[in-house]
Amino acid sequence: MKLWQKETGSKKEVESFTIGRDPEFDILLAPFDVLGSMAHAQMLSTIGLLTTEENEILQRGLKAIYLEIEKGEFEIAPGVEDVHSQVEFLLTERFGDVGKKLHSGRSRNDQVLVDLKLYYRAAIREIVEETTALSQLLIELAEKHKNDLMPGYTHTQLAMPSSFGLWFSSFAEGLSEDLGLLKASFDLANKNPLGSAAGYGSSFPLNRTMTTELLGFADLHHNVINAQNSRGKTERTLAFGLSGLAGTLNRLASDVCLYMNQHFAFISFPDDLTTGSSIMPHKKNPDVFELIRAKTNQVQGIPNAINLILANTTTGYHRDLQLLKEEIFPGIETLKSCLRMTTFMLSAIQVKPNILADSFYKHLFSVEVVNELVVKGIPFRDAYKQVGLNIESGNFDPNQEKLNHTHEGSIGNLNLDLIDQKMKKAILEFNFDQIDKRILGLLN
Amino acid sequence: MKLWQKETGSKKEVESFTIGRDPEFDILLAPFDVLGSMAHAQMLSTIGLLTTEENEILQRGLKAIYLEIEKGEFEIAPGVEDVHSQVEFLLTERFGDVGKKLHSGRSRNDQVLVDLKLYYRAAIREIVEETTALSQLLIELAEKHKNDLMPGYTHTQLAMPSSFGLWFSSFAEGLSEDLGLLKASFDLANKNPLGSAAGYGSSFPLNRTMTTELLGFADLHHNVINAQNSRGKTERTLAFGLSGLAGTLNRLASDVCLYMNQHFAFISFPDDLTTGSSIMPHKKNPDVFELIRAKTNQVQGIPNAINLILANTTTGYHRDLQLLKEEIFPGIETLKSCLRMTTFMLSAIQVKPNILADSFYKHLFSVEVVNELVVKGIPFRDAYKQVGLNIESGNFDPNQEKLNHTHEGSIGNLNLDLIDQKMKKAILEFNFDQIDKRILGLLN
Amino acid sequence: MKLWQKETGSKKEVESFTIGRDPEFDILLAPFDVLGSMAHAQMLSTIGLLTTEENEILQRGLKAIYLEIEKGEFEIAPGVEDVHSQVEFLLTERFGDVGKKLHSGRSRNDQVLVDLKLYYRAAIREIVEETTALSQLLIELAEKHKNDLMPGYTHTQLAMPSSFGLWFSSFAEGLSEDLGLLKASFDLANKNPLGSAAGYGSSFPLNRTMTTELLGFADLHHNVINAQNSRGKTERTLAFGLSGLAGTLNRLASDVCLYMNQHFAFISFPDDLTTGSSIMPHKKNPDVFELIRAKTNQVQGIPNAINLILANTTTGYHRDLQLLKEEIFPGIETLKSCLRMTTFMLSAIQVKPNILADSFYKHLFSVEVVNELVVKGIPFRDAYKQVGLNIESGNFDPNQEKLNHTHEGSIGNLNLDLIDQKMKKAILEFNFDQIDKRILGLLN
Amino acid sequence: MKLWQKETGSKKEVESFTIGRDPEFDILLAPFDVLGSMAHAQMLSTIGLLTTEENEILQRGLKAIYLEIEKGEFEIAPGVEDVHSQVEFLLTERFGDVGKKLHSGRSRNDQVLVDLKLYYRAAIREIVEETTALSQLLIELAEKHKNDLMPGYTHTQLAMPSSFGLWFSSFAEGLSEDLGLLKASFDLANKNPLGSAAGYGSSFPLNRTMTTELLGFADLHHNVINAQNSRGKTERTLAFGLSGLAGTLNRLASDVCLYMNQHFAFISFPDDLTTGSSIMPHKKNPDVFELIRAKTNQVQGIPNAINLILANTTTGYHRDLQLLKEEIFPGIETLKSCLRMTTFMLSAIQVKPNILADSFYKHLFSVEVVNELVVKGIPFRDAYKQVGLNIESGNFDPNQEKLNHTHEGSIGNLNLDLIDQKMKKAILEFNFDQIDKRILGLLN
Repeated sequence: MKLWQKETGSKKEVESFTIGRDPEFDILLAPFDVLGSMAHAQMLSTIGLLTTEENEILQRGLKAIYLEIEKGEFEIAPGVEDVHSQVEFLLTERFGDVGKKLHSGRSRNDQVLVDLKLYYRAAIREIVEETTALSQLLIELAEKHKNDLMPGYTHTQLAMPSSFGLWFSSFAEGLSEDLGLLKASFDLANKNPLGSAAGYGSSFPLNRTMTTELLGFADLHHNVINAQNSRGKTERTLAFGLSGLAGTLNRLASDVCLYMNQHFAFISFPDDLTTGSSIMPHKKNPDVFELIRAKTNQVQGIPNAINLILANTTTGYHRDLQLLKEEIFPGIETLKSCLRMTTFMLSAIQVKPNILADSFYKHLFSVEVVNELVVKGIPFRDAYKQVGLNIESGNFDPNQEKLNHTHEGSIGNLNLDLIDQKMKKAILEFNFDQIDKRILGLLN
Repeated sequence: MKLWQKETGSKKEVESFTIGRDPEFDILLAPFDVLGSMAHAQMLSTIGLLTTEENEILQRGLKAIYLEIEKGEFEIAPGVEDVHSQVEFLLTERFGDVGKKLHSGRSRNDQVLVDLKLYYRAAIREIVEETTALSQLLIELAEKHKNDLMPGYTHTQLAMPSSFGLWFSSFAEGLSEDLGLLKASFDLANKNPLGSAAGYGSSFPLNRTMTTELLGFADLHHNVINAQNSRGKTERTLAFGLSGLAGTLNRLASDVCLYMNQHFAFISFPDDLTTGSSIMPHKKNPDVFELIRAKTNQVQGIPNAINLILANTTTGYHRDLQLLKEEIFPGIETLKSCLRMTTFMLSAIQVKPNILADSFYKHLFSVEVVNELVVKGIPFRDAYKQVGLNIESGNFDPNQEKLNHTHEGSIGNLNLDLIDQKMKKAILEFNFDQIDKRILGLLN
Repeated sequence: MKLWQKETGSKKEVESFTIGRDPEFDILLAPFDVLGSMAHAQMLSTIGLLTTEENEILQRGLKAIYLEIEKGEFEIAPGVEDVHSQVEFLLTERFGDVGKKLHSGRSRNDQVLVDLKLYYRAAIREIVEETTALSQLLIELAEKHKNDLMPGYTHTQLAMPSSFGLWFSSFAEGLSEDLGLLKASFDLANKNPLGSAAGYGSSFPLNRTMTTELLGFADLHHNVINAQNSRGKTERTLAFGLSGLAGTLNRLASDVCLYMNQHFAFISFPDDLTTGSSIMPHKKNPDVFELIRAKTNQVQGIPNAINLILANTTTGYHRDLQLLKEEIFPGIETLKSCLRMTTFMLSAIQVKPNILADSFYKHLFSVEVVNELVVKGIPFRDAYKQVGLNIESGNFDPNQEKLNHTHEGSIGNLNLDLIDQKMKKAILEFNFDQIDKRILGLLN
Repeated sequence: MKLWQKETGSKKEVESFTIGRDPEFDILLAPFDVLGSMAHAQMLSTIGLLTTEENEILQRGLKAIYLEIEKGEFEIAPGVEDVHSQVEFLLTERFGDVGKKLHSGRSRNDQVLVDLKLYYRAAIREIVEETTALSQLLIELAEKHKNDLMPGYTHTQLAMPSSFGLWFSSFAEGLSEDLGLLKASFDLANKNPLGSAAGYGSSFPLNRTMTTELLGFADLHHNVINAQNSRGKTERTLAFGLSGLAGTLNRLASDVCLYMNQHFAFISFPDDLTTGSSIMPHKKNPDVFELIRAKTNQVQGIPNAINLILANTTTGYHRDLQLLKEEIFPGIETLKSCLRMTTFMLSAIQVKPNILADSFYKHLFSVEVVNELVVKGIPFRDAYKQVGLNIESGNFDPNQEKLNHTHEGSIGNLNLDLIDQKMKKAILEFNFDQIDKRILGLLN
């Protein structure tokens, strides 16, 4: 039964088509729905739409449901339309008519919006935590392998000397920079839409600033149409944030798949983390990284899938928006699992030592030798010509083991501490502690 | 002739295919190429790779070229490969061998990267300025039309009363929030890649912190591989930033096209801004807004076009990256023109007065009437039933002219000052003044 | 346990990440896997790799499994890796070692490929059937409403007279033309990859022409690398085919959502097929069509999601390809349900009569009147001027009820029979009967 | 001056924004605009809207303009809005009022539509021709290198023996299959929209079947709304057709870039077709193939760019459609140049002989040896175990030079003749000759 619908029957086919995957997503929204209701009730009691006593009953009842959700004891009963209805039913069943008063001054539109915003906020936090773990590991690996040289490629052609320290830490810094985009999406998720009702506000004297503070939002969408328009925009922006990190993981996975190829053979993983063949002992298929590569591409397709749904739509809620959940919810899970699996796999990576000692790689060092001559005072064009002639005559025999790179971020000066600080500074800007404080305040 | 190529001839066909649209883009990069070279030379002189005298010659020469570019007197001579070569040729032609010394310690890769970063930084600034102008106009229009009611729709169905004040200012606040994404892309553009050379650093003792400061970058990409990997990531992130604004403009344009339809007829524009037909006097085609709608969709397709180019590519420069310019450069221009045209058109918008006075719209007010009864003390369910019965019996006759909405961001309390502050605060975070100071310092 | 893997243990995390949604998709492939195996065994017995007796046992055993699948009695046992393993296990369990002989001369790569091709072939057929049903209904509706005039819009502005007959049948013809794209994807699905083994062929003297015929394929991918490369290409092409139909449904749904708006109010649906509100009696939310609109946009995003996974990948199987199923399998189901729901809803559509009789629409007829004058012999420019003057002076009073359009495909000559023939001819080209005959032959 | 606009002035800014890139595209449409007008005039003369004499004047005049276009002497005069207006102006200037009669019974909408259809039809033909040339070369290369073995990879890991003959011809067959999709787009382009006027037909007794035949269209869009809806659908379908070929070229280019890497070093190109460095003699940058890779990705992004513009739009012309030209026109040119450059480069490819003779590759042959034993009568599981033990004990020493693959499409039986026939058959279905005959008939 639906709370809002006229009593006429509804065709089964329509029902199933319109509900779609909502039940599986709604259960994820449950704790946030309760939090939103707690803040809303609190606020209603200050503007005379709930008595102090009614509010106390609702706060107690909602907190009980919150704990049931945490314990996994909450479910949406058969025939109940959605998570919002289920919570309201439980309250009404347990406390009578006061449960029905909770919906005053809001519509399902702003209720869903606030649930989604709180859910995204929490999801972003989990992504930040997975990103931090991976970044930490990359910095450790960079420190461990700072002296392990490897070739650097341009145009997929051997070009210059590089190192595993440089390679690992390039992704650590990349991840820290990706957090900027994620922060932009967090800022949009972290704005209060409550009080926008169906997208055109309410004639009740709601106190939207109060619910903003209670829920730990950093700000509110002031304009109520804009609050409603943030549905879709929030998802698109979050998809951009996921995409940024996905792009970095995609490159890392692409490198790994190439470097595991037997012609390169720079890195390997324990047998139980690759798949092989007993009659092809050379074969170590990088299935996990191939899947990370493909899954991060899936994630990178999400912004576009969202854009297609939103394109050319006008102001005001459209049912189309429901399907955004089908795009962004799995995307969040996919990205988290890709972050986790990258960390898991890299924690077991084995790096081949002394790669560049092989004379196969000697031409990588030609620029090094030219630069050494320049530093010794030989003009660049002359130094270049001299090295070119040596190479041509077969007399080029550089030191292939030591490099003297000293500038910021180079092989000999990885700036790992600065990269680590960059990540830590990026995380601080999310100000998660402040949100924790508010949510704890609401629950206690 | 190419500076870097072996003396063998190169097939015409290959030449034309590989150059593509670079000449038209390169000219846009010229001033930034000169600035990058000024900073690089300055730094080289502090690490002994240029004498003080050589540096002074180069600074003077580069400044002269910068002024020529500003006056429109600079062009890339036929047969010269690119803007970088042209600048170096001019210097060598005018000052002799010292011109050739400028390239020490950098490669074309980091030179292009720094040019692009500076160009994007400037382009973002222009976009911010266009956005500000539009936002200002929207706030003025909202103030002017704050009492002009209009219908609010959900599911494209008449739903609740809204107002032009609410509608105009929804986009003003939306734009201010879009700047968050643009700021994230600005932060990535505003990081110094210089010194990363071909993506693996240099054996020269470069001072990358110094060029970072000279060019007014807020930070540097420390890790040199990460600096190279920022090619592509910077463009993708900027494309996200453009997309965000494009999404807001797309919705505004979609609304306009609908509201200009004769069944709605809420707004109109002077005849010379629409196209019509002398035998169909009702027809006022909203061509400009249809094109804004389509062009903002073009812009929203750019992130995906960039993702396709980057997908599954490995670490290190690939020639593929050249084509990113073909995606992002026109995208920047398209978005700027859409912002400008939206401002231009809206400055002439005519709003139909008293729309909701028509009894056609009376059911829009049913929720208002229910809420009024609730505020007077009648329980919600009873109030709802009473209004429902009135409607059913044809006795529903609400006041269709006045609404009493008071909460933050509602029809009666638009929070225009707060929305304006939001925009101003967003702009301040770009810290453009600081960049101006640095660039002026470099040029003087 | 995996059939092909070395005996070392495999980490749980990796397992779950790599399996993904395969179990739910594999069950869909089961009947096709059995058919592929029947054809393969048949062929092996002709080249001496199976004895006649062994083949008979396998044919009998496979047919039994096929019937179990049809009855819904087949499932993949816990711990069994995939559908292929399950079938092989069942055979071995029931008939001993002969079950293991089935895999000679093929690898999992070409086995999966053939399963997918057969599955897509069947899925396309179902889509063609749903499309036919919708097309039939549209033609009936067009016939029924051929005299019901409505406005035609350009630029979303009132432009010319149109009719519901014209509108309904435009989609019927559109669907028939969409089948061309679907046929192109069918042709790719309808090519035999069996015998390509891991993508580089086999040293066994396989008879690929024979399995092609047994499975009713119209042709084979001759080149074995090309057969392997068809993984991905087949999915992308199918996604194009789905997209074509989705585009037509998207436009139909967009029209419906607009025409249901109260300002238009051209069409309506019974109350139990829309959602409403008891205090807003005007409101009939077109949820189903909004969801069709959004779901068809989801489908239109699939080609791009596939392109992102495939971009820049090299020849040869990559594990990335597994994820194509996550894109295309749900896409097939979504499109089928959109086709079904469009048919279901349109079967209940109510059309408002006499729309154009209202003088609001009289300017729609100005071109008609001009043309009438031209046909009577008045030069076009003079006729145009005369009508323009009449309109200006308020003396324009056209007959708003009858139109005399006679050319092919116009309001007065809808060519419904030709459109119907177009659809029937398009369907015949799929040659489904021939496939039925072959599959029946294989099973008997 | 515009033919259709009221005399009021039009703001410069609007003008420039709305015209966009149309002038550069319009010139490409010129010859087709003339052909469309010739057929239209011919038809008008049979239904009494032009006298025989008027028609003769117009035919003569149009043919003269056609020849001017062919000689490059045609241009759109400053101030003239578009190609259609320019042709009409020329006719009127040269022959007086009869020029103005040409527009009877059509609107700019169906005129543009017919121009575009004819242009796409011709463009597809050029693409088919470029594809044929590349396919021919690939078959020749396959024949030449049929005995040159190379490794086959799965998961980018060494897997099985392959050959250059197999590799080259895989793309030849792939291209022939891509033509199916291009044919589907050709069929849509090859349908006559003329007579649909502004999308709702005409009250003139047009003979649309006649113009269909005159212009060599295979069919007409009967329903006039459907004809108008084909704008957008035709472009999207063509974009799918381009995408299909682009996907094949992208894979070929990706392979080339990998195989040119020094660790692989399977293929090379003459120095003047790659870019290098005098102090890094190993470096042969595959710039052309990197650009083909990126450009084919650009092409693969076009369907999506088109979808974004069309998403959620309603029936009837919208100005948005103009921008489709900006997506598809450059896409056509890009794909043609990628086809040409692939052919150009491959005609100079150098293949390394005897790659697999190196013992590095010996495990590639393990499956071969197992199969040999099986054919000799040893059960598969025993053969497999025996080979596995030999490998483990270091006693595996296969013949690395000869393979005995005999089945259809395998290394030893490339089926080049069948692949060639497949391509020829695919081309025949376009029936270009029939179109030539019709167009010649029209011009003579």
